[in-house]
Amino acid sequence: MIQAAIMGYGTIGSGVAEILEQNQAEITRAAGQNVALKYVLDLRDFPGTPIADKIVHEFKVIEEDPDVQIVVETMGGLNPSYPFVKASLEAGKHVVTSNKALVAAHGTELLAIAKKKGVNFFFEASVGGGIPIIRPLYRCLKGEKIEEITGILNGTTNYILTKMDKEGETFEHALKEAQELGYAERNPEADVEGQDTCRKIAILTAMATGKEVNYEDIYTEGITKITDVDFKYAEKLGTSVKLFGSSRIQGDEVHAFVAPVMIGRDHPLYMVSDVFNGILVKGNMLGTTMYYGSGAGKLPTASAVIADIIEAAQNEKQNVPMGWTDERLEIAEMETSAHRYFVRIAGTAAEKLAEVTTLFGEVTVVELDGLDEFAVLTGKLTEAAFQDMAAKLDQGYQAAGEDGIRQMIRAEVE
Amino acid sequence: MIQAAIMGYGTIGSGVAEILEQNQAEITRAAGQNVALKYVLDLRDFPGTPIADKIVHEFKVIEEDPDVQIVVETMGGLNPSYPFVKASLEAGKHVVTSNKALVAAHGTELLAIAKKKGVNFFFEASVGGGIPIIRPLYRCLKGEKIEEITGILNGTTNYILTKMDKEGETFEHALKEAQELGYAERNPEADVEGQDTCRKIAILTAMATGKEVNYEDIYTEGITKITDVDFKYAEKLGTSVKLFGSSRIQGDEVHAFVAPVMIGRDHPLYMVSDVFNGILVKGNMLGTTMYYGSGAGKLPTASAVIADIIEAAQNEKQNVPMGWTDERLEIAEMETSAHRYFVRIAGTAAEKLAEVTTLFGEVTVVELDGLDEFAVLTGKLTEAAFQDMAAKLDQGYQAAGEDGIRQMIRAEVE
Repeated sequence: MIQAAIMGYGTIGSGVAEILEQNQAEITRAAGQNVALKYVLDLRDFPGTPIADKIVHEFKVIEEDPDVQIVVETMGGLNPSYPFVKASLEAGKHVVTSNKALVAAHGTELLAIAKKKGVNFFFEASVGGGIPIIRPLYRCLKGEKIEEITGILNGTTNYILTKMDKEGETFEHALKEAQELGYAERNPEADVEGQDTCRKIAILTAMATGKEVNYEDIYTEGITKITDVDFKYAEKLGTSVKLFGSSRIQGDEVHAFVAPVMIGRDHPLYMVSDVFNGILVKGNMLGTTMYYGSGAGKLPTASAVIADIIEAAQNEKQNVPMGWTDERLEIAEMETSAHRYFVRIAGTAAEKLAEVTTLFGEVTVVELDGLDEFAVLTGKLTEAAFQDMAAKLDQGYQAAGEDGIRQMIRAEVE
Repeated sequence: MIQAAIMGYGTIGSGVAEILEQNQAEITRAAGQNVALKYVLDLRDFPGTPIADKIVHEFKVIEEDPDVQIVVETMGGLNPSYPFVKASLEAGKHVVTSNKALVAAHGTELLAIAKKKGVNFFFEASVGGGIPIIRPLYRCLKGEKIEEITGILNGTTNYILTKMDKEGETFEHALKEAQELGYAERNPEADVEGQDTCRKIAILTAMATGKEVNYEDIYTEGITKITDVDFKYAEKLGTSVKLFGSSRIQGDEVHAFVAPVMIGRDHPLYMVSDVFNGILVKGNMLGTTMYYGSGAGKLPTASAVIADIIEAAQNEKQNVPMGWTDERLEIAEMETSAHRYFVRIAGTAAEKLAEVTTLFGEVTVVELDGLDEFAVLTGKLTEAAFQDMAAKLDQGYQAAGEDGIRQMIRAEVE
């Protein structure tokens, strides 16, 4: 038997307790031993629930109990998660976490402590909810040179964009609906501004490259400027718009960004709708693979925590190498990355197209009835070149006292 | 350093040698030691190639060389693969194979020998080419009760069906094209009759249930009866037709089949086109996940072999439990499984619908211009009930000297 403690009895923590109970036979068989829940750390009591007698209010109880070999951190945030997790590892306990903020901010240090102590620090649930993605990266794809990881990593924004796409809703309306359904927080900034996705792609990039990633180095743009009008053009183009977290790795040159991207129907992530997540991994030998599932939710996320608990129990006496070192990854400046661009421009194509093609080169033009604007899809340009051309185009408009570019969305369309 | 031998220098075997060379740094880092190729067993010589000096023609050389710790079997078929693999395991060597026929026919025995000898028998490449699916089942999803595994597991048939769907081709024409491109064999029976898919779903079912599966117990129907007319209806219905290998597990009741299935656009496997494979896994806590990638091809498949080689090297001295026991899984009779059915019926809906609804209950009707038939989509019925109703309907036609049911395709449409 191996004993575990859960820190934080919220949605995910209670899901973990529930699965430990309900799938006990499967977990025992897989772990090679019974996994027993000894403590649940929470500020609250939960009288009348199955874990009522396991509640403790002091971390010290867990830290100082040598019988607790696995600590499950499902509190979220950095404080007190970070000191508690660090102390648990220092005390020679395995730690399993669902906390992307913790892993993105302190992963390198916590992995190093785990290694030193001969225990494990696992975080499958920190990215992609229930989708196995961290473990495939260190268990299945370690013989590959990873060339790209691109994911739809945030269920809230994907739900909002899906509503805008399929039902023509405005951003504001779709956000409100997501809030009413409990998919979005009252303060949705971390989701809609891309910060959540940023931490997740930082973790995936560290796993793919074996290097430490400072998530603040990753260019991050949210979805708050995407409008229902953009989706009208998208429909005409047979495309959709998704919030991507993406890293492209070519030797020592790594580009990473979080931004809305316009994609076509043949993109493997096109079908990832609603609150689902999908992650595309491209290896130099393997080609493209894709992993799809529930990116959030109590039981799917708790299921990923359970997979980590099982691996910790299987490796009770040894550290499993994750390949994430303390060498810092250098991420190229966003302005050196190249994309196609979907651009909405005031005026009519008839008047403006000559100027537009002079600046951007050959473009695909899209026009919608009843709008005093048109849109183009450019060829591949670096960000720097695009910004420069866009500024020149805007100048022309401003001189004439008009609006210029109304929207720019990066595009990956064949 | 750990030394390996490859048996069979065909497409996959040569791919393995190529990746061992090209991704040497990644493989060494992941395996924790250098993986050196000592021998390549083949009847042919390969003068002037990098492996020319490694060629041996006698299995005995590999079997009797204690330096060879990993044997890679990429010959295919059962003879001499089976005796060679068995002897390698008996000699205390790890075996990695891409051979679905071998795993489906002898997996239980070979896994038992590996366990007894404290070595490993790995077969990631036997299903889904480069897609990590076997390893996720024993590494990531072991705490789940698996409720369903459904896959598009054969690239050849998926290519043919995609051509029929997107370009309106007949089966015969699409098959010919697949043969010209080298996607289909001159004798395509194992693919188009579903036998390849059958072996793969048998392996996945054994991994999901932990029990031995006799692939001959799995109802298997290929795609040779699917026509371009079916796809005309599918287009009107917003559906497609894919060859599924599928197991549905509810407690002790397991249904498994290989058959073409009509699915809607919201099915996670709808987007799996051309030679790609996709595998959906549903867990009781996790919900639905999906794994997508190249189901065949030299380097993707070899990449899966490499992942197994790495895991064998990491576990040089121990057997990794795969959870596949020798307890035989009982698979329910096909006639007790329930589906919706797409049915094409001679005559017009106006004449025949009353009779059809009397038999099948409420149906969705589809009519195409210029055909002397119509189609319906039934509600969920057991196979036994459907066959009975279909026979009754046919009788009515035969009595009137007419054609009856022209086509039946199982359907999973919302």
